[in-house]
Amino acid sequence: SNTLSRLVESAPFNRLVTVIILFAAVLVGLETYPALMERFGPTLHLLNNLVLALFALEVLLRMAALWPRPLRYFQSGWNVFDFAIVAFSLLPGLGTYAVAARLLRLLRVLRLIRTLPDLQIILGALLKSIPSIGWVLVLMLLLLYIYAVAGVFLFGQGDPFHFGNLHTALLTLFSILTLEGWVDILRIQYFGCDRFELPDPALCTQPKAQPLLAVVYMVSFVLLGTLVFLNLLVGIVVNSMDE
Amino acid sequence: SNTLSRLVESAPFNRLVTVIILFAAVLVGLETYPALMERFGPTLHLLNNLVLALFALEVLLRMAALWPRPLRYFQSGWNVFDFAIVAFSLLPGLGTYAVAARLLRLLRVLRLIRTLPDLQIILGALLKSIPSIGWVLVLMLLLLYIYAVAGVFLFGQGDPFHFGNLHTALLTLFSILTLEGWVDILRIQYFGCDRFELPDPALCTQPKAQPLLAVVYMVSFVLLGTLVFLNLLVGIVVNSMDE
Amino acid sequence: SNTLSRLVESAPFNRLVTVIILFAAVLVGLETYPALMERFGPTLHLLNNLVLALFALEVLLRMAALWPRPLRYFQSGWNVFDFAIVAFSLLPGLGTYAVAARLLRLLRVLRLIRTLPDLQIILGALLKSIPSIGWVLVLMLLLLYIYAVAGVFLFGQGDPFHFGNLHTALLTLFSILTLEGWVDILRIQYFGCDRFELPDPALCTQPKAQPLLAVVYMVSFVLLGTLVFLNLLVGIVVNSMDE
Amino acid sequence: SNTLSRLVESAPFNRLVTVIILFAAVLVGLETYPALMERFGPTLHLLNNLVLALFALEVLLRMAALWPRPLRYFQSGWNVFDFAIVAFSLLPGLGTYAVAARLLRLLRVLRLIRTLPDLQIILGALLKSIPSIGWVLVLMLLLLYIYAVAGVFLFGQGDPFHFGNLHTALLTLFSILTLEGWVDILRIQYFGCDRFELPDPALCTQPKAQPLLAVVYMVSFVLLGTLVFLNLLVGIVVNSMDE
Ligand code: NA
Ligand code: NA
Repeated sequence: SNTLSRLVESAPFNRLVTVIILFAAVLVGLETYPALMERFGPTLHLLNNLVLALFALEVLLRMAALWPRPLRYFQSGWNVFDFAIVAFSLLPGLGTYAVAARLLRLLRVLRLIRTLPDLQIILGALLKSIPSIGWVLVLMLLLLYIYAVAGVFLFGQGDPFHFGNLHTALLTLFSILTLEGWVDILRIQYFGCDRFELPDPALCTQPKAQPLLAVVYMVSFVLLGTLVFLNLLVGIVVNSMDE
Repeated sequence: SNTLSRLVESAPFNRLVTVIILFAAVLVGLETYPALMERFGPTLHLLNNLVLALFALEVLLRMAALWPRPLRYFQSGWNVFDFAIVAFSLLPGLGTYAVAARLLRLLRVLRLIRTLPDLQIILGALLKSIPSIGWVLVLMLLLLYIYAVAGVFLFGQGDPFHFGNLHTALLTLFSILTLEGWVDILRIQYFGCDRFELPDPALCTQPKAQPLLAVVYMVSFVLLGTLVFLNLLVGIVVNSMDE
Repeated sequence: SNTLSRLVESAPFNRLVTVIILFAAVLVGLETYPALMERFGPTLHLLNNLVLALFALEVLLRMAALWPRPLRYFQSGWNVFDFAIVAFSLLPGLGTYAVAARLLRLLRVLRLIRTLPDLQIILGALLKSIPSIGWVLVLMLLLLYIYAVAGVFLFGQGDPFHFGNLHTALLTLFSILTLEGWVDILRIQYFGCDRFELPDPALCTQPKAQPLLAVVYMVSFVLLGTLVFLNLLVGIVVNSMDE
Repeated sequence: SNTLSRLVESAPFNRLVTVIILFAAVLVGLETYPALMERFGPTLHLLNNLVLALFALEVLLRMAALWPRPLRYFQSGWNVFDFAIVAFSLLPGLGTYAVAARLLRLLRVLRLIRTLPDLQIILGALLKSIPSIGWVLVLMLLLLYIYAVAGVFLFGQGDPFHFGNLHTALLTLFSILTLEGWVDILRIQYFGCDRFELPDPALCTQPKAQPLLAVVYMVSFVLLGTLVFLNLLVGIVVNSMDE
């Protein structure tokens, strides 16, 4: 068992597992080509099962290495993740849900994070910097929520496509944050949906032009939103670089 | 009164108020769904009144805590804000202006800034960094004003939709600052509004192609505008992070 | 003359000039509204002449303050600028070129840079940081030039609207740098202009789909261009902040 | 030979070569104008041959300067590049491949990097900063790959135009990274391709609306992608500035 424990922690073993994961990643990528699936479907199926067998073997080896207390295996989050990926793939009924089975095979690619310690460090630094921007995030959400509710109250009737209800307005405001298509949304209010068409013209039942209100609402949101969004992104990037 | 003063300044009291504000925020969010309003309108109305009663009680408690000089309550800006929100909601005639009443209920959400000191710090840092970028802001406004007036003089006849007068041109230039749709605006001048259509083709009464002038105007504005805008945003972000 | 020299350099005199310039700025802004011009045209004309007279008086005062050597006035660049603005406005033939006369009146707004020293500092810092990014600018121009020439050779026949010749391709690449509409330009090459329409479909005389080449060209340009452009902007902003 | 070696390393020689390269750059730029080519084709051809002769002479001079060991010339990468540019241009069959011959002439412009040492330094700093962001790049690729495969599995049938297979989905996700047109791609899934049209409507054979899934997929990708992309760009810019 001591030998086994040295084996599963050795660099060559880790490299071999990395190669198998990369191979699994290529396999799941090939599955996105219908023509390939039709022609080499059975071969790909076989290779996927081979990968699954190797992953199962890896789980067993890692457990055996902890003999006589193999259940200590489950003390590590990554081990639980590995085990779950293998176990779910072995469930008998899964074959009937093609998309679920495919997404499960895609999850195998995430195992790379375990076998590549440098990647883990970068990812850890990014994750650790999230709390430091916690209150800026709250500010962002508050800004989005207030503008979304106000948007529904002010523009909900004139532009139900973008401001019909709270969740629609939130999505609209998120798209405005990325500065994508915000000018068209402003114009619908500026001219009224009868003069500047909605993406779905049938929704324009109560056209209403309120140019001044619309300009104040949109320009202030673009300025405040961009500012807080940049603050968020820069906060994460700067903090993650410090680590 | 001393006990009362300790009560209204205690952490649990503050947490309770925060929870009530969050509840009020959820209520005003639910109001954006017409179907919900139709079915649960009276219930929501009742809950809104309950929140209002609790806010009024909070105002009274905070005043009483300052006994024998309750009017010192109005020395804090936040207290004035809280009082105004309650007082305006109690005005009898307001019921006839549905949107105004709703926006007033939305303002209650801003009370969160008072009860969450960390949010107050972030917001304060952002606000404090604005003076430091004061002159860059003046530069930005000068740039916008000069390009807007020049835009009306040069392109007002060829493209009245975007450059018809000063306020239209200012809005157009702000949209160009966000790099949204600037290529189409350039093309209208580059080819003339008879060959590259305006959003409202009826406005194209004096088509005029002036490609060289349009390219110099737009490219220089995109370069200068992006530069000064980035300077502004980075100035605020960097200054607010220093705090 | 010593008294006069103290006068023209005093803070109140400077403030007064600033106010007159701001007034001139408002006047030129009002000129952008045709309806106003029709109704108050003569009044605006009169006020413009008043401003011109005050500017001329200012020039004379500043010259007189340098008595007995008034020509030393022209040793300062700003004085030359002020003098030119007044002199050109007094040219008799100018009235026939309405746009030129208006732009000249707009130039008066730039006099603000002289009377607001803080604005001058910000602007100076921005200008001084340009040499420090000189070679990044050369790199940017080299990148644009090489991609533009290559774009004409590779895509000029398939998409003459965007890559018909060198200056058209340079403008196209600049618009891609701002990430505005680059996906549509890529699609024209990806599918050929017969399947994905040009803004001017008549130009599609030799449709040609070359998906791989187009993707390599566009994606590499977006990555390199964004990188160098960001480098340029950040270089200017950081350097100007250091000052 | 000692004199020759001093000559080819002297500043004036370097400046002369720079001027010739700039002249070659202008020539290749003129080739992009069909009208010019028709009228001055033979002259341009002659001038191009003159440039080629001068470049060949330069190669010979630099080799001769290393006499008695001229082959040491090939120890420098830039020399090999210079030699290849001259040698390939002299190949007899090349005249039949017009585009290849033109691109080869365009490559001459890259010789500027050799003759302008400051440009070389900037470029070197940018290149040296790439390894430092190596693992962030791996993270970016992993993010793109996982979202691309998941995109094909989830949206491939409903929107084959954007998610038909792995390479199409990768290109789509890259365009979303630049925030160009991402809202339209989301809407196709949000409403189904029967209600919100694909760029190629004929591809909409299995319309399917899955709003919740689409919003989670797109919003999470926009947030994660922007964050990691900004991290990449800032990483390169900051590292290259340190140099
Ligand atoms: Na855009
Ligand atoms: Na954009």
